[in-house]
Amino acid sequence: MWMHTSCSLDFQIPVATPFLFMLRPRSGWQQWVGREQYVLSPSVSAVEFTDPFGNLCQRLVAPAGRFSVHTSVDVESAEASDTAPGAPFVEVQHLPDETIPFLLPSRFCESDRFTEMASSIGSGWAPGYDQCAAIVDYIRRTKRYTPGSGQQIISAGEVNEQTHAVCRDMAHLGIACCRALSIPARMVVGYLENLEPMDLHAWFEAYLGGRWFTFDPTQSDLQGGRVAIAYGRDAADVAIYTQFGAPVELLRMEVTVERRPAPRF
Amino acid sequence: MWMHTSCSLDFQIPVATPFLFMLRPRSGWQQWVGREQYVLSPSVSAVEFTDPFGNLCQRLVAPAGRFSVHTSVDVESAEASDTAPGAPFVEVQHLPDETIPFLLPSRFCESDRFTEMASSIGSGWAPGYDQCAAIVDYIRRTKRYTPGSGQQIISAGEVNEQTHAVCRDMAHLGIACCRALSIPARMVVGYLENLEPMDLHAWFEAYLGGRWFTFDPTQSDLQGGRVAIAYGRDAADVAIYTQFGAPVELLRMEVTVERRPAPRF
Amino acid sequence: MWMHTSCSLDFQIPVATPFLFMLRPRSGWQQWVGREQYVLSPSVSAVEFTDPFGNLCQRLVAPAGRFSVHTSVDVESAEASDTAPGAPFVEVQHLPDETIPFLLPSRFCESDRFTEMASSIGSGWAPGYDQCAAIVDYIRRTKRYTPGSGQQIISAGEVNEQTHAVCRDMAHLGIACCRALSIPARMVVGYLENLEPMDLHAWFEAYLGGRWFTFDPTQSDLQGGRVAIAYGRDAADVAIYTQFGAPVELLRMEVTVERRPAPRF
Amino acid sequence: MWMHTSCSLDFQIPVATPFLFMLRPRSGWQQWVGREQYVLSPSVSAVEFTDPFGNLCQRLVAPAGRFSVHTSVDVESAEASDTAPGAPFVEVQHLPDETIPFLLPSRFCESDRFTEMASSIGSGWAPGYDQCAAIVDYIRRTKRYTPGSGQQIISAGEVNEQTHAVCRDMAHLGIACCRALSIPARMVVGYLENLEPMDLHAWFEAYLGGRWFTFDPTQSDLQGGRVAIAYGRDAADVAIYTQFGAPVELLRMEVTVERRPAPRF
Repeated sequence: MWMHTSCSLDFQIPVATPFLFMLRPRSGWQQWVGREQYVLSPSVSAVEFTDPFGNLCQRLVAPAGRFSVHTSVDVESAEASDTAPGAPFVEVQHLPDETIPFLLPSRFCESDRFTEMASSIGSGWAPGYDQCAAIVDYIRRTKRYTPGSGQQIISAGEVNEQTHAVCRDMAHLGIACCRALSIPARMVVGYLENLEPMDLHAWFEAYLGGRWFTFDPTQSDLQGGRVAIAYGRDAADVAIYTQFGAPVELLRMEVTVERRPAPRF
Repeated sequence: MWMHTSCSLDFQIPVATPFLFMLRPRSGWQQWVGREQYVLSPSVSAVEFTDPFGNLCQRLVAPAGRFSVHTSVDVESAEASDTAPGAPFVEVQHLPDETIPFLLPSRFCESDRFTEMASSIGSGWAPGYDQCAAIVDYIRRTKRYTPGSGQQIISAGEVNEQTHAVCRDMAHLGIACCRALSIPARMVVGYLENLEPMDLHAWFEAYLGGRWFTFDPTQSDLQGGRVAIAYGRDAADVAIYTQFGAPVELLRMEVTVERRPAPRF
Repeated sequence: MWMHTSCSLDFQIPVATPFLFMLRPRSGWQQWVGREQYVLSPSVSAVEFTDPFGNLCQRLVAPAGRFSVHTSVDVESAEASDTAPGAPFVEVQHLPDETIPFLLPSRFCESDRFTEMASSIGSGWAPGYDQCAAIVDYIRRTKRYTPGSGQQIISAGEVNEQTHAVCRDMAHLGIACCRALSIPARMVVGYLENLEPMDLHAWFEAYLGGRWFTFDPTQSDLQGGRVAIAYGRDAADVAIYTQFGAPVELLRMEVTVERRPAPRF
Repeated sequence: MWMHTSCSLDFQIPVATPFLFMLRPRSGWQQWVGREQYVLSPSVSAVEFTDPFGNLCQRLVAPAGRFSVHTSVDVESAEASDTAPGAPFVEVQHLPDETIPFLLPSRFCESDRFTEMASSIGSGWAPGYDQCAAIVDYIRRTKRYTPGSGQQIISAGEVNEQTHAVCRDMAHLGIACCRALSIPARMVVGYLENLEPMDLHAWFEAYLGGRWFTFDPTQSDLQGGRVAIAYGRDAADVAIYTQFGAPVELLRMEVTVERRPAPRF
């Protein structure tokens, strides 16, 4: 199915400010970018590079004054995300090299402190996919999903002490628990249809039975209609924008996601 | 300035055939991709990866029958390509690691066999940019640029024995001579305005004074209006499509390049 | 000058356990590996890969029972680490792409929470090297360096609330402050001569004026005699060993570092 | 089993000359580096980087005069190289991304010109391992292996017109034919025991049934006792040394390979 998504950001910039954006989705598994646009207003010179996780990053210096970024994309995406109950745990020694960094603790996923909790949640389940599902279930039962409630990014340990959580928090908690069970897990930031209110979304993927699978603790039944923008170890790696120097004001951020008929080119 | 470019390919496919395409330009130096589209007809599942040179590559299996690829892009590009007469040769020991592969011989640039010729052309010129300019000048003087005359890709050594050459041949010869002087040189395939007849174009870049500079042996004065699609060691790395298995028929290839006012998004 | 260093680890392993080791120093800036050995007892099959930071990592499954790793290396290293008072801050937009990940917050360096503190320490100093020196000086004045006092790894925020610190803590604090000033900073784990008691050491590097420079908050005057083993964003990336699954017992860890005459081969 | 190998090079250098060496074997599949040394005489400053193929490369400037490089290594290597008659062809669309570059033509393996020949050799054999074995067999039947007979490196096309060949030539021919059948193939340079006269050796690997397998057209029965030094697309990528600028004289090159009891460290 085809989806049309967009993200618009308006900033008030006091003084010329370097930015790093991550707003260009790539084609990948179950995701084909058919049309895309990326508008900077005013137009400024920008360069792009691929970060260590394979994300396209845009670097630019925003001039003082009003500065806007508008991106949109038409993507052919999967109606349903793949699931695989029973998919086995991959023993650490058989994991592909490139999954290893996703086993280690990271800024917001202190997996080194979740060994006990994760073992307890996962006990009684077959090692692998079913443990991840149990973790997701546990998060859903213990945290109330509260869109928009989160301002500063908090770590899985801090999330764990709260009763409410945003999508990002729930993903961090899920990632920390998976890694504590030696299951590689990574953060995804992207678009998801039907969010209320509409916003960017965060979920996670775990490596099981030889490939990555999608998990989303905000949903009781995993739904499709996703467009991944960036992958990383946690929110620190996938900020859609990072701004350096004196603070700037984000005046407006608007996200749209809708199904559309296949684009006529 | 803004340019709109497109490339359309129509194939007749006898039996389902794996393809590798390289038709998604990236933003980079003097090049910002503002709008892009990439259409497969019929629509098939495709995946994308970044090759060792940083190019985005699309992998898919084309079904039997008629298969078309249509890509287009709106790019903000430089009115003029940077030049830098006098820019110095960078001694090999001071080159960045990532330029080293572009010093070595490759499929179509047997630089190991051009030491004498390159030394002779470059002698009398300051090491660096001016030597590259002398090489370009030599190629222009000795080869008649004959668009469309080349079918099978030939190597720099074979080019050297001919009096006519296509853009790709001239780039190969330039690259082979630069490398023979220990100057890193790489192939670029892309769009260039005002070609007659319009087609994809090939030129090369050399690393001088700390950055890459554009050289184009088909032009007496280096012109801008370029959109790079892919970079590599030579034509073997930057084929816009590679097809595996039984031969397919390319029915039509059409390229367009035009200046346009800044797109209104 | 030549140094001979070694690291020996003895484990008691209850059940076959996957390990990731990072104990093979590479040649690099001011560091040439002339002789190296790496012994596993009992001998087991191991594979090696390069992680995203360029470190060589060894993967293996340690069998149940006693398991030992002994590595040693003869390195030609610099008598003194380079310093560069006055070296300028590199504006973010001019930083090489590969330094960007070292600007972002990481597991143990929550630089996003150090903006105020770092600005305060750095104010009055020229942007760049001198700010980093001021940060190191601040750390030395406010934390008592207490070798061996640290068990669990704590983050820069936690370090900041303490009066004592191990080398790793001091490096984390320095890195967090540098990044808060938009100066790329990375963790180094390695050998340093004359430690008392002898142990592995941790320090950091900051990117200034176009290259990385060494900083070590445990020393009033920066000394040479270093051998870098691994680089990363913080201690999470450069653990010399990571063990997955049920806990194992580290029975003994012994580190030696000594100057030696040039080895006769 | 343990092997001790060494490579010594003596040069006469007329004027200070930049070099690129590839003489540090890495641990990998069926290969564990237990002890290694790398001596430069006179001692000069050198740096090391990892090339796009994962090989460790040493960069240095050799001073005028006599310059020697001596490397040796103790490696635990496999008694026998794995074979897998019947291992299936992996369809191009299912190949891992990182194998794709090894499908394309390269400097000395013009696979684009071997389609007919490879199809003819491979016809009648099951797609995959057995085709590769048939290619090796064909090379053995049509080329007389003549150690040391080759001076300048020639390409597969040129090899094909000769009746004698060195190991490198035979590997190039094998690689070109494999790629022409859409089987990824890569060059290996390394040590092999029992060569007469002793020298460095070259063979190739092909990707079949999900992993790389060793093929060696110089042997009727594939033997173990190998130590891989470097991997690449062909000889252009794996030169153990590359020298830039005015020619230097290689006075002596000596290679030793012997089985040894497990080293006592």
